[in-house]
Amino acid sequence: MLKKSRLFTPGPTPLHPQVQEALSRPILHHRTEEFRALFKDCTAGLKRFLKTDGDVLVLACSGTGGMEAALVSVLSPGDAMLALVAGNFGERWAAIGRAHGMEVRTLEAEWGDAVAPARVEEALERDPRIRAVFVQLSESSTGAAHDIEALARVTRGRKDTLLVVDAISGAGAMRLETAAWAVDVVVVGSQKALALPPGLAFVSMSTRAWAAAEAARAPRFYFDLARERKAQAGGESAFTPAISSVVALRAALGSVESMGGVDALVRNAGVLAASTRAAAGALGLPLVAPRAHGDALTALYPPPGLDSGAIVKALKAEFASTVAGGQGKLKGRILRVAHLGYYDTTDILGLLASLEVVLHRLGHRFELGAGMAAAEAEYLRLTKD
Amino acid sequence: MLKKSRLFTPGPTPLHPQVQEALSRPILHHRTEEFRALFKDCTAGLKRFLKTDGDVLVLACSGTGGMEAALVSVLSPGDAMLALVAGNFGERWAAIGRAHGMEVRTLEAEWGDAVAPARVEEALERDPRIRAVFVQLSESSTGAAHDIEALARVTRGRKDTLLVVDAISGAGAMRLETAAWAVDVVVVGSQKALALPPGLAFVSMSTRAWAAAEAARAPRFYFDLARERKAQAGGESAFTPAISSVVALRAALGSVESMGGVDALVRNAGVLAASTRAAAGALGLPLVAPRAHGDALTALYPPPGLDSGAIVKALKAEFASTVAGGQGKLKGRILRVAHLGYYDTTDILGLLASLEVVLHRLGHRFELGAGMAAAEAEYLRLTKD
Repeated sequence: MLKKSRLFTPGPTPLHPQVQEALSRPILHHRTEEFRALFKDCTAGLKRFLKTDGDVLVLACSGTGGMEAALVSVLSPGDAMLALVAGNFGERWAAIGRAHGMEVRTLEAEWGDAVAPARVEEALERDPRIRAVFVQLSESSTGAAHDIEALARVTRGRKDTLLVVDAISGAGAMRLETAAWAVDVVVVGSQKALALPPGLAFVSMSTRAWAAAEAARAPRFYFDLARERKAQAGGESAFTPAISSVVALRAALGSVESMGGVDALVRNAGVLAASTRAAAGALGLPLVAPRAHGDALTALYPPPGLDSGAIVKALKAEFASTVAGGQGKLKGRILRVAHLGYYDTTDILGLLASLEVVLHRLGHRFELGAGMAAAEAEYLRLTKD
Repeated sequence: MLKKSRLFTPGPTPLHPQVQEALSRPILHHRTEEFRALFKDCTAGLKRFLKTDGDVLVLACSGTGGMEAALVSVLSPGDAMLALVAGNFGERWAAIGRAHGMEVRTLEAEWGDAVAPARVEEALERDPRIRAVFVQLSESSTGAAHDIEALARVTRGRKDTLLVVDAISGAGAMRLETAAWAVDVVVVGSQKALALPPGLAFVSMSTRAWAAAEAARAPRFYFDLARERKAQAGGESAFTPAISSVVALRAALGSVESMGGVDALVRNAGVLAASTRAAAGALGLPLVAPRAHGDALTALYPPPGLDSGAIVKALKAEFASTVAGGQGKLKGRILRVAHLGYYDTTDILGLLASLEVVLHRLGHRFELGAGMAAAEAEYLRLTKD
């Protein structure tokens, strides 16, 4: 049988065709008016994407580079910081903090859950030395979401405590009102909802964050956001930009705007995620994050008695569809299906039907079509006029 | 909601990515060793695709141009010819014959049916002046198939009667053994199973067909296959070839061979077609060709009380998926879903699920998921090891 390779992974996600086209153009030189204008277009588009009037800086690095840039730009060695750890990526905030000599406090949640804002408020009350709270909007290892709006209500009244959000896989898939909620720092990666290849990170900084950056003494050079701010105001980056990626970024931002802006993209992911959850329920695949689920991806346990790795392998072998397995302590125990970025309803319905085939082949007992009926009904319910 | 444009039409079909890549390369010059070698590769690949050791010529024209080239190359004005008419494309053979002054006889079948080989044998017995029988392997207007193997058994013993097959949409989707069955002339178009854009036609000629071509006096210049045969033996075409299309043709033939050759592609279409028929049965959409169905496409009547045009429009509006409507006397009365070419199981399952959504919205009463259950069960049955 013919098999088209399809990625259903929460990064990389499928490239938008306009991105592919942009990436295939001849290279430009970056110290030119043409490139400066293009770069400024990107910056303006990123502000709309993140719903902020503050600075959004473009860095040539992966999402983790963006996280490190955010952290070293607002803290000094020995500073107390609070990392909310609800999965693999929460642990990353703590690890970066430790690598830079911070005094790292953590608040943990069961994997699949999120850290409750009330616990954060309590921790900040107890320890006013905490300079910043670090958190994921979407915890990609479990599909759980943190309530950023509520967390920002906790931090925005505290003069000396910033809120730094890893929205790498969450931005563009879940609601994020950077300015309206007063989120100080947001980090985004290119290979997620923006449907670009990996290689760019975006960091938004509030006025409070810039004030903290002035005082911050963590050693930094490539990740010096103040230096970038100065350069990027003129449409240049401090160091050589990833030129073709920036050209593609403008195309990606254009494609989002032509579909109705980031809200439309968020709604799209929301409907795909809800349909997937409905199918999972009907097929007997428990959600990893039943209460705290986000919409960027859905993480699922296999049905009792089945091995998640066998499902991942069978989808790949029989249909050339790649879903992600687990990470960290969930490695080998779950599968993860992405909704963020360039996916449409037909993609997800096709994947769910092929999942039914694979589950049947692996001996899972269920009524063929039951997941599809649930997914279609949920789609219909959510898209009623 | 995000919507990816998808074609499920029986031509054009989706381009293979290797075809897209090939089409985007810089142009070559055609009077070069490089191009001659490439052209000969294509000719050799087309022979494997059509299962013949005879000549297969490449023409820069649409499929209809290939049909005309075939007809004018084997007949002389005033010759009697027999066109088997079971749909829109059967009528085209008759129209081309009349345009060239042939004495056109027809054997008609109800649209959705095929002309029985016994009727052809009888007609040839009755009128031994008939120089050639013209027929479709796949009648794209109804999805019906003619039994080419049985028709060839009728013609191959008759010295003066050729079998000329329009396999434009059938080749690569349904079994066709050009040499083993002794089919004299086969016409194929590029925008069908080969997953190329329209613009090339391929015509295979048997030894008997070449003998007829020597005697044929129908006026022809661009469509003079004997002239092409001489030129193409050296890797050139008589007139300027569609260079980029030929470069892409080599890529297309390579992609077919890398999936296991034409038999694998035929099997793929067969499984997709059977799954679609199963879903249609479960959803209450009657087949246009219930007895004579082929596998290149499936033509369906809407459920009682629903308008086929509304289904076509809703699939396009809500999912950006294009299925074909009817042609000729079935215009506005049916929908047609393609299986030939670059489609995989996930494509078809995704389309069928979106069809369920659309049927539900249009008020058709059925159990959501019923079509999916039937399609998945049929897929599982046909792909059991």
